[in-house]
Amino acid sequence: MPKLANVTYDEITVGQTASYSRLVEERDIALFAAVSGDVNPVHLDADFAAGTVFGERIAHGMLTGAFISAALAMELPGPGTIYLGQSLRFRLPVKIGDTLTVTLEVTDKQDRRNIVTLDCRAHNQAGKLVATGTAEVMAPAQKMSIERPQPPRVRID
Amino acid sequence: MPKLANVTYDEITVGQTASYSRLVEERDIALFAAVSGDVNPVHLDADFAAGTVFGERIAHGMLTGAFISAALAMELPGPGTIYLGQSLRFRLPVKIGDTLTVTLEVTDKQDRRNIVTLDCRAHNQAGKLVATGTAEVMAPAQKMSIERPQPPRVRID
Repeated sequence: MPKLANVTYDEITVGQTASYSRLVEERDIALFAAVSGDVNPVHLDADFAAGTVFGERIAHGMLTGAFISAALAMELPGPGTIYLGQSLRFRLPVKIGDTLTVTLEVTDKQDRRNIVTLDCRAHNQAGKLVATGTAEVMAPAQKMSIERPQPPRVRID
Repeated sequence: MPKLANVTYDEITVGQTASYSRLVEERDIALFAAVSGDVNPVHLDADFAAGTVFGERIAHGMLTGAFISAALAMELPGPGTIYLGQSLRFRLPVKIGDTLTVTLEVTDKQDRRNIVTLDCRAHNQAGKLVATGTAEVMAPAQKMSIERPQPPRVRID
């Protein structure tokens, strides 16, 4: 079985990086609308979106925030991380079919409470920067390696 | 049909407020895991979560971020808003069955590009502050009132 492992506070070094990629599918926009309640037609209605400045449906900005949060939770520091704060700057729209790659880089460690600061960048498949930000987390003290859970199976009717 | 209307830049005043409430159901945690890829067992596995500092399953921190983004997109300024940036501070865990109320308050307007800054707070049903932050958006110039779209219907298998 594939494993889900973390990087403990003691193992983390300033300058360390990790990345996390996700394809943005039509279903992701529907799921994000369902979970957030943001049912704006610029995300859900192709005809409506064609008449906006974007010219086509765009993903919710905070979907990129969700990918950044998943990068922290799954990759660096990974399981056991406590999320303290996040800043986000949305720079370019994200469209259906885009593949986003989140890159994390550790920029600071504070030993007193195992606090780690990470620079966060999300690029699309064309190498364009779609979002930037800074995350602050409490990194896990204990090493953890668990069976990687399967994502819940969801269907859109 | 219920309508979805916006508040244009010209209509917005400093001090104006809006709120947006959501019940956090088990299905929301599953949907957020599916859409973000964050399948950490502290969110999905009740037995695992019982052994953590939280004592039970908690929602993904960024689910609260998703609710804040929906408050901006649905309530103030509403449809036509362009999301520029967001800061978030996660203060308390959110659990299944919590009802979060996001409160937005306009703190600044910049006429040159229709930029609006909003203070964002999320409280749970006990009145405890679970997250705070600041949003920066470009408010719509054009009034819009459209039929309120239905959220996509999703099922978890």
